[in-house]
Amino acid sequence: MSFQLKILGSNSAMPAYGRHHSAQLLNVQNHYFLIDCGEATQMQLSRYKCKTLRISHIFISHLHGDHYLGLMGLIFTMHLLRRKSDLYIYGQKGLREIITTQLKYSDTVLNYNIQFRQLDPSQPELLFEDNTVEVSSFPLFHRVPCCGFLVKEKPKPLRLNKEKLPPKLSLAHIAQLKKGEDLYDDQGQLLYKNTDLTLPPRKSRSYAYCSDTKYEEAIIPHIAGVDLLYHEATFLNAKEMWAAQTFHSTTTQAAEIAKKAEVGQLLIGHYSARYNDLTPFLAEAKAVFDNTKLATEGEAIDVPDL
Amino acid sequence: MSFQLKILGSNSAMPAYGRHHSAQLLNVQNHYFLIDCGEATQMQLSRYKCKTLRISHIFISHLHGDHYLGLMGLIFTMHLLRRKSDLYIYGQKGLREIITTQLKYSDTVLNYNIQFRQLDPSQPELLFEDNTVEVSSFPLFHRVPCCGFLVKEKPKPLRLNKEKLPPKLSLAHIAQLKKGEDLYDDQGQLLYKNTDLTLPPRKSRSYAYCSDTKYEEAIIPHIAGVDLLYHEATFLNAKEMWAAQTFHSTTTQAAEIAKKAEVGQLLIGHYSARYNDLTPFLAEAKAVFDNTKLATEGEAIDVPDL
Repeated sequence: MSFQLKILGSNSAMPAYGRHHSAQLLNVQNHYFLIDCGEATQMQLSRYKCKTLRISHIFISHLHGDHYLGLMGLIFTMHLLRRKSDLYIYGQKGLREIITTQLKYSDTVLNYNIQFRQLDPSQPELLFEDNTVEVSSFPLFHRVPCCGFLVKEKPKPLRLNKEKLPPKLSLAHIAQLKKGEDLYDDQGQLLYKNTDLTLPPRKSRSYAYCSDTKYEEAIIPHIAGVDLLYHEATFLNAKEMWAAQTFHSTTTQAAEIAKKAEVGQLLIGHYSARYNDLTPFLAEAKAVFDNTKLATEGEAIDVPDL
Repeated sequence: MSFQLKILGSNSAMPAYGRHHSAQLLNVQNHYFLIDCGEATQMQLSRYKCKTLRISHIFISHLHGDHYLGLMGLIFTMHLLRRKSDLYIYGQKGLREIITTQLKYSDTVLNYNIQFRQLDPSQPELLFEDNTVEVSSFPLFHRVPCCGFLVKEKPKPLRLNKEKLPPKLSLAHIAQLKKGEDLYDDQGQLLYKNTDLTLPPRKSRSYAYCSDTKYEEAIIPHIAGVDLLYHEATFLNAKEMWAAQTFHSTTTQAAEIAKKAEVGQLLIGHYSARYNDLTPFLAEAKAVFDNTKLATEGEAIDVPDL
């Protein structure tokens, strides 16, 4: 099953050098989660052949323009594409007002419902869950209320050991095996022990997104051990003082968080418009945490199903 | 002196085939007027090497997203670029609220002032004038309150006839000649008749912008005789019924307006996302009004200084 992150935007504050504002599309087992939605995200979705109407949930970390100004355009385009299903939007206080004000003045009644949920930037919250996936938020440390997001697969069923499986098992028996139950016949006699026919479940994969934040170790408990961590790295190390003043992080700080949280892989982005060449970003981060990757627009990162 | 229109966006409703939402930059004698500002206009300005901070006045025809959703991003970028001079924004009722709501939640105090003026969509109004240029609005006929804009050069001074000009004329005398005055000596004796030393002034050039409107001949008096008319042509003729229902125009309707208003040149755009090939747009419009051009992003149209 898929667990793929597609980078739609990678730059901070101002678009530059062909890089766009923050936006990512995460496909987890056919859930399509849009995480942040900078200006021109709808064009980026189109450029990279992502199906706009598949997006079910949109998570906006905070109300700086480079993280949400593409949202209204996407909402209108979904309307024009005749979306019918509810769209779930999670954002800070104010986002609902920003949306409804603009719908009012455009005199638009959408074909679909927006289900808006206001984030609580002060504590972790479960935002969404179903049988296979859950999404929660946690506090980040920025100039305005800001949340990170954690997306985790739910614990998975046991796998059937195809080499050991007897022929013609009923669907009911297969379901019992996946749940960890032993199999009995109609008289209550043990037929098969579960452990003889199953293998351990696949690993539940996880992704954490830290959009805009200063270096802050209080984040670590929320993201500890994730397979993939996106952590902003707006500046190179030389700008550490400026990063602190603007509540942003450097490459080394992002890598320190990744290392201390013992994550699988680190993805950095949210590059300042002052930098054209991103090579030093990778070098600086890798010096602290080797398994680091640069967020590059149009690229997809797959978390393997092990 | 310059009178140049740069096309930044040419599509309606949804971006498609690499075409963006409505936006145009008009340079009249070093005034930089931005007319409509669809999503990603700031990227288009950058792509086409337009100097963002030179823009002094922004005119937004109406509050459909494809005409204004790039405005907040541009406002924030001007702030980050450390703009100091006032920015004049003209828009329908609601635009001020849309801007201030978003500034509030982003916790941004801009480096510069926005001078906002609410348009009156019911009657023509003079919006801006100085010694050389004036801009006014006039009603269009769309689903929501919508204005067109008319930009005109003020009457120009007489030109000096360099072949006839006596040597060593004082600056004061030259200024008098340009105003149409005869020249006298200190004793009040006629030195030169104005008509002997001057040529008629250059033509005052004009541009009219009709963003979104149904076919409506009431527009004609406002745009009669302009050198360059932009009139939306969202649909080909085959969709005339649909154009009427959605308060848009067809190619032929745009050309009919141009013909009846006796304009110099017609520019059509605001193409529906249903069309990839725009060749039939030009053919249909030219059948009615030959001097028609397609709005093409990145292209500039110069109105010559005759």
